[in-house]
Amino acid sequence: MHTILILGAGKSSVFLIDHFLRSAKEKNRKVIIADISEEIAREKIKNHPDGQAVRINLDDEVDRRSLIGNSDVVISMLPAFLHPIIAKDCLDLGRNFFSASYESEDLRKMKNDIESKGLFFLNECGLDPGIDHMSSIQVINREKALGNKIISFKSFTGGVLSPESEDNPWKYKFTWNPRNVVLAGKGVSMFIRNGKYKYIPYHMLFRRLETISFDQVGDFDGYANRDSLSYRKIYGLEDIPTLLRGTLRRSGFCQSWDVFVQLGLTDDSFEMDLPDGFTQRMLFNSFLPFHEYKTVEEKLIELLPWVDDSVLDKIKWLGLLSDVPLAKTKGSPAAILQSILEEKWKLNPQDKDMIVMQHQFEVETPMGLKKIISSLVCKGENQEYTAMAKTVGLPLAIAVDLFLEGNIKLKGLHIPVLPEIYDPILSALEKEGIIFEEKISVG
Amino acid sequence: MHTILILGAGKSSVFLIDHFLRSAKEKNRKVIIADISEEIAREKIKNHPDGQAVRINLDDEVDRRSLIGNSDVVISMLPAFLHPIIAKDCLDLGRNFFSASYESEDLRKMKNDIESKGLFFLNECGLDPGIDHMSSIQVINREKALGNKIISFKSFTGGVLSPESEDNPWKYKFTWNPRNVVLAGKGVSMFIRNGKYKYIPYHMLFRRLETISFDQVGDFDGYANRDSLSYRKIYGLEDIPTLLRGTLRRSGFCQSWDVFVQLGLTDDSFEMDLPDGFTQRMLFNSFLPFHEYKTVEEKLIELLPWVDDSVLDKIKWLGLLSDVPLAKTKGSPAAILQSILEEKWKLNPQDKDMIVMQHQFEVETPMGLKKIISSLVCKGENQEYTAMAKTVGLPLAIAVDLFLEGNIKLKGLHIPVLPEIYDPILSALEKEGIIFEEKISVG
Repeated sequence: MHTILILGAGKSSVFLIDHFLRSAKEKNRKVIIADISEEIAREKIKNHPDGQAVRINLDDEVDRRSLIGNSDVVISMLPAFLHPIIAKDCLDLGRNFFSASYESEDLRKMKNDIESKGLFFLNECGLDPGIDHMSSIQVINREKALGNKIISFKSFTGGVLSPESEDNPWKYKFTWNPRNVVLAGKGVSMFIRNGKYKYIPYHMLFRRLETISFDQVGDFDGYANRDSLSYRKIYGLEDIPTLLRGTLRRSGFCQSWDVFVQLGLTDDSFEMDLPDGFTQRMLFNSFLPFHEYKTVEEKLIELLPWVDDSVLDKIKWLGLLSDVPLAKTKGSPAAILQSILEEKWKLNPQDKDMIVMQHQFEVETPMGLKKIISSLVCKGENQEYTAMAKTVGLPLAIAVDLFLEGNIKLKGLHIPVLPEIYDPILSALEKEGIIFEEKISVG
Repeated sequence: MHTILILGAGKSSVFLIDHFLRSAKEKNRKVIIADISEEIAREKIKNHPDGQAVRINLDDEVDRRSLIGNSDVVISMLPAFLHPIIAKDCLDLGRNFFSASYESEDLRKMKNDIESKGLFFLNECGLDPGIDHMSSIQVINREKALGNKIISFKSFTGGVLSPESEDNPWKYKFTWNPRNVVLAGKGVSMFIRNGKYKYIPYHMLFRRLETISFDQVGDFDGYANRDSLSYRKIYGLEDIPTLLRGTLRRSGFCQSWDVFVQLGLTDDSFEMDLPDGFTQRMLFNSFLPFHEYKTVEEKLIELLPWVDDSVLDKIKWLGLLSDVPLAKTKGSPAAILQSILEEKWKLNPQDKDMIVMQHQFEVETPMGLKKIISSLVCKGENQEYTAMAKTVGLPLAIAVDLFLEGNIKLKGLHIPVLPEIYDPILSALEKEGIIFEEKISVG
């Protein structure tokens, strides 16, 4: 009998937990769900007889290590900063570790010890990072095996709304961490284009867009996402002339979002402490120049002449030009903006989210230039069974299955870039409806 | 006999050192100049019989404390981060401390002990902070004493070139710390205008300008400088509807500088590691979008349509559109840009710098609105005796004189905002040619 310990029973754990509970009896497994709230863990189990809900106090080392020591594999769905602690426990106690987060420097320091103890630690096995690695490297390696040369690779991912739920002018609601959405794109974005290094500062990011189209669900804005250069090594594309990773939002979103970026409303570097009764309009105005008699709207258009009615309508819809007092008056501009957006971009019970991902390859072949467009569209079922939870949780769940059943025989510290990991995972994901569609044109 | 210890014999210490040496015999004083380089200390003394040059190793606590313990007052011209160490030594050894740097949190923690030991610690007694405080608070207190109410206060300072040395298209050269010039304005700038809080993000700063005029030396661009709000308390203007502090550059500078800000060339948040042979033009291009056949110049104008010939000429003059290889290929964009600018904005031996400062007050009086414009123009003598060194060093020197001669009787931790400090200092500065000219209009 194997014991699977899942740490963290938050929103993104739901598919993962269901997956293990469904087959627990048949596969003779015990599934323990540990969360700081036993109630949340219990809710996720839904009275399934093979699940056990446990309250965990992560600061209590004895408690934590006893739980980990009694498990065969540990899946951490905790916030990423906690992973080094859990991974260290696993290393000391000889347990295997799985997460959907980036492989950190702390984890890398454990690399030799993980190997020498014969353990298997797998990170970056969710959606992004995760499915993005696996689905693109499968194509890259296939083309390389054919003797072809990849000269351009662009990859875009977005966590958005399913089209039927796009019922506001932004066609957007928060389907994952609101703070990450508000701060998205901070810092410089770097990539390589036709052999030339390209850097985009944050305040230019939301105007340097590409249109990314999906047959099923239409057009999206794609903007560059942080450091694409480091992916050259991971993907074995050291000499590729063009490599860009980006984020997707529904067309039109970025131009309007850019108003907030340009004004400074997404600034997270200083704290505001505004008087009681300060309205949303006053907040907006505090980022505009002073003028004796011009209105906020007039000043906005003077400062950002590209603001048209469609942009202005979106700003208005959020209430930012209204005399409604701010619910939150202390915090960074980004935090105050987030509190307004959370109210307006709240999901309705019937709303569905959607994951869109597209890889675009240009490949030199003996028959000429081959263009490959590989697209994934995954819609959520409802507010609990979201596409986000599905695409983050299932790759992890499948990886754990493969490992426990002896179908992954690797040891050491890994991310899913080897065919013995990604091939079986991608096949299993297809059966779950997570399917990439490829369009190929040559010449 | 009093012993005056000056720590740090850098460029800005020259007027300070000369001031004390000149009167050392007459006033029966010993003047010790300590620097990490004894040679630099010796150069500044110019064989004056009453000066003593000493090499100081700041890490050697015994050495440092012996030097401080044998002095009556310590003037620290060291980098600001070292001040808490020196101040702590002074506190422990019962010595008085003077600096031209901002009063830090570390210093504030010593406040009670400084008082109880009967010592006098004076910070912010240079140019900015220093002369700016003294000259504006003198006017503020004068108007308050008349029963008038100050409703607007704007204050601008710039370290620039004297007009006869403005011999390049930027009309600018580095007359002080180049790194601070390249990074100037980073973070948000906040102020209050007609009772409304105003925030300007960095990428908007160099386009939200005011023209500030001086009868003698013409027009300058004024842009907002960091946190003006905190000055309300220091200046006793808690309820003032308009308070703005700003920085001055020669007219036209800011628009061209904004090209670097917009492209991201002043970014200091990440490191570039560019290939050998990477040219200045390639660097510039790496911050522009890719295009099949458009030139760098065409892409720049497409991205920033306000770039006209006068802006383009300035960029070209710096060599940034040339095929000259970069001298520095590793470092942040800001550091690489700085290395290019340092070459081009180097002072010639005959060049003179200039300090410009202007305070603009609007005051409610029984006779109507009074406008006061108080302006300072101070030109350097040559590359050694700069206006910067004069305006930073002389206020400190005068403060020390006043203290040693018993004309400042205060104890405790201070900045020069009390009349018993600023009145005599401003009078003495006038005799040195540092004179504010006031223009007043009423009605």
